Amino acid sequence: MKAAIFRGGDIVVGDVPEPKPATGQVLVKTLACGICGSDLHAAQHAHRMVDMSKRVSGRIAMDLSRDVVFGHEFCCEVLDYGPDTERRLPLGARAVAMPVMPLSAETRTTIGYSNDYPGGYAERMVLAAPLLLEVSNGLSAEHAALTEPLAVGIHAVEKATLASDDVPLVVGCGPVGLATIVGLRLKNARPIIAADFSPKRRELAAKMGADIVIDPAKETPYGKLPVGRRAVIFECVGVPGLLQQIFEAAPRDARIVVAGVCMEPDRIEPFFGIVKELALQFVLGYTPAEFAWCLSLLAEGLVDAEALITGKVGLEGVKGAFKELANPERHTKILVEPWR
Amino acid sequence: MKAAIFRGGDIVVGDVPEPKPATGQVLVKTLACGICGSDLHAAQHAHRMVDMSKRVSGRIAMDLSRDVVFGHEFCCEVLDYGPDTERRLPLGARAVAMPVMPLSAETRTTIGYSNDYPGGYAERMVLAAPLLLEVSNGLSAEHAALTEPLAVGIHAVEKATLASDDVPLVVGCGPVGLATIVGLRLKNARPIIAADFSPKRRELAAKMGADIVIDPAKETPYGKLPVGRRAVIFECVGVPGLLQQIFEAAPRDARIVVAGVCMEPDRIEPFFGIVKELALQFVLGYTPAEFAWCLSLLAEGLVDAEALITGKVGLEGVKGAFKELANPERHTKILVEPWR
Repeated sequence: MKAAIFRGGDIVVGDVPEPKPATGQVLVKTLACGICGSDLHAAQHAHRMVDMSKRVSGRIAMDLSRDVVFGHEFCCEVLDYGPDTERRLPLGARAVAMPVMPLSAETRTTIGYSNDYPGGYAERMVLAAPLLLEVSNGLSAEHAALTEPLAVGIHAVEKATLASDDVPLVVGCGPVGLATIVGLRLKNARPIIAADFSPKRRELAAKMGADIVIDPAKETPYGKLPVGRRAVIFECVGVPGLLQQIFEAAPRDARIVVAGVCMEPDRIEPFFGIVKELALQFVLGYTPAEFAWCLSLLAEGLVDAEALITGKVGLEGVKGAFKELANPERHTKILVEPWR
Repeated sequence: MKAAIFRGGDIVVGDVPEPKPATGQVLVKTLACGICGSDLHAAQHAHRMVDMSKRVSGRIAMDLSRDVVFGHEFCCEVLDYGPDTERRLPLGARAVAMPVMPLSAETRTTIGYSNDYPGGYAERMVLAAPLLLEVSNGLSAEHAALTEPLAVGIHAVEKATLASDDVPLVVGCGPVGLATIVGLRLKNARPIIAADFSPKRRELAAKMGADIVIDPAKETPYGKLPVGRRAVIFECVGVPGLLQQIFEAAPRDARIVVAGVCMEPDRIEPFFGIVKELALQFVLGYTPAEFAWCLSLLAEGLVDAEALITGKVGLEGVKGAFKELANPERHTKILVEPWR
C-alpha cells in the first residue's frame, strides 16, 4: 500500500507492506490524519527522540534504519477484523482510536512511532480492535481526527486540578495551547489569558474562548494576572529556556502545567522556584476516558473544529506540509488524506 | 556588643553597634542560635546569594561591603521593649521568633541576612515584638532554638499534601531531611524511606522515625518504593544535578518536593518529567502557624531534640564550626551561645 514514509531522515512517498490484522486487531482505511508537532520533531531529531525514549523506557521505540510511517491523530473506516476477533463495529463504520497497540501485558507500542505498525500517513492501518470508538452524530472524518490533539489539551487541564478561583494563562497557542483553551472554557475557568507571538494564533485563541489575548512582544501576559488569585500557567511551547522564563515571570505560588514536549536538556535556576514556592506538573497524553470525552465534544459540536483545520493534503503533500507547519501564520492543523 | 561578624568574606569576632529597639521592637539577649546550611552557603557564595535575591525580589538584601551578623535559628531572653510597645512577655521571659523584621507594609528583611539587624551570632538582637513566642514547659533554650529548622521540614511535609496511601522518600538526611522525617512521622506516613551517604546521618534518620534507611552508595532507595502507591520524594540536598537524578530514578506519577535550596543554575531533561508525568513543588520557609506548632512539639517532648544537637560553641568558635559542619559524620546542628 502507499504511504508517506520516514526513510533515511526524509519523508518519501512509496510502498510499504500491506498490514494484516492479527487476533484482536482490526484493519482500517485511513480517512484523515492530523500532522502533529511531535511528528515534525521526530523527523528533525529522530535519533535524539529514539535515544531519549530508550533512556526513559529502556526500550528502543523505532529502528531508524527501517521505515517508519508517522500519524497518530486519525479517523478511519473499519475494513476487516483479524481472526477470532469480536466484530464490535460494523464494516464501513467510521471510528477513532487511541494510537496504542498492546504487545504484551506490560508492553505496548505507539502507532505512528513504530516500525511494525504504520500510522495514519498510510492508506491502511491495523489497530487494536477493543480501542475503536465509533464516530457518531454525522461527525465528519476531518473533525473526528481532532479527537487526539484535543485530548492532549483536555488532559492538561484535568491534571491542573483547577480550583474555582484559579486564573489560567496559556503560553503558546499552537494546537496544544488551543486545545488547552478549549478545555479551560469547558471548565468555565475565567478569565482565560493566552499569549502567542503570532497574530493568527492569537485570533484562534480568542475564537476558542480566551478572554484576554496578549502579544508577548508588546506586553507581558503576566501583568494581566489578577492579584490575589492563584495563577495556573500552561506551558504549551516545549522549547529550552521557556521554563526558566516562566520561573522568572510567574507570581508567587503559581502552578505551572508543562504540556509542551521539550526533548532537549534545559537550564533552570531553581532559586526562582524556591523563593516563589512554584509548583510544576508535567503532563503527557490522556486517559481513555478523556479521549472518549473529546470525541463526544466534537460530535456534539461543542468545539469549533473547522477553525483549527487549515489545510488538507494527500500523501504527496506530506513533505511540503511539514515545511509549511513551521509558519504559524499559515497553519494550525494540516490533515493528511491518504486516499486522495 | 560582641558578635561573630561576616566581614570581607571571613567570619571574625568583633564589636558591632549595640542594637536599640524602636517602637514595635524588643531587645533580647541571644541564648542559643543554630548554624544553618544557608549561613554556610552565604559565607561561601555571598555575592551569588545577593545577586540571586536581587534578581528574584528586585531588592538588595545585604551590602557586602558592610558587616553582617548571621543567625536566624535562635532562642532568646526578653531584655527591654522599644518606646510605646506592648510588653506582652515579661522581661526575663525566654522566647523564639520568626527571623523577620517588617520594614513597611510591603517590605521586610530577614534577621541574620541584613546589615541593620544582627542575627543570633551576636550577644543581643532587636526583634519584631509581635512575633515573640514564649518558651513554655521548661523547654531549654538549646532545644527551643530548633524551632526554626524544624519548621522548615514541617512546612515541606505540609506542602506535600500527602494522600493516605502515599509513600515518602527523603533524599538527604541533613537538618532539613531530618526535620522532614519528623514531620512525616507526625503525619503517620508509612513507610518512611530515607537515603544518605553518611552513616551518622542514616543513624539519625532512623532515630527520627525513618522506617527504611538506605545507603545510596550500596543500593538505590527507589527500589524500596512499593509498586502501586504514589511516591513523594523530598529533595533535601540542594545541589545542581540532584533534580535530574530524581527525574531519572523516580517512578511514574511521583511528586517531588524540593526543600533543598540550590542557588546555582541547574540542568534538567524535561522529557523524563513529561513521560512520567512528574509533579514538583518547590518549598521555602514556613507559615507562622507552622512555626508556632514546632515550638509546641518541642515543648511537649515530641521531637528528640537532644539527638540533633551535636555541638555548642561561643562566638570565638563560630568560624571553626563553619568548617566542622562540612563533615556530616561529626555534626548535624551546632549551636552558638554568644554569652559563653
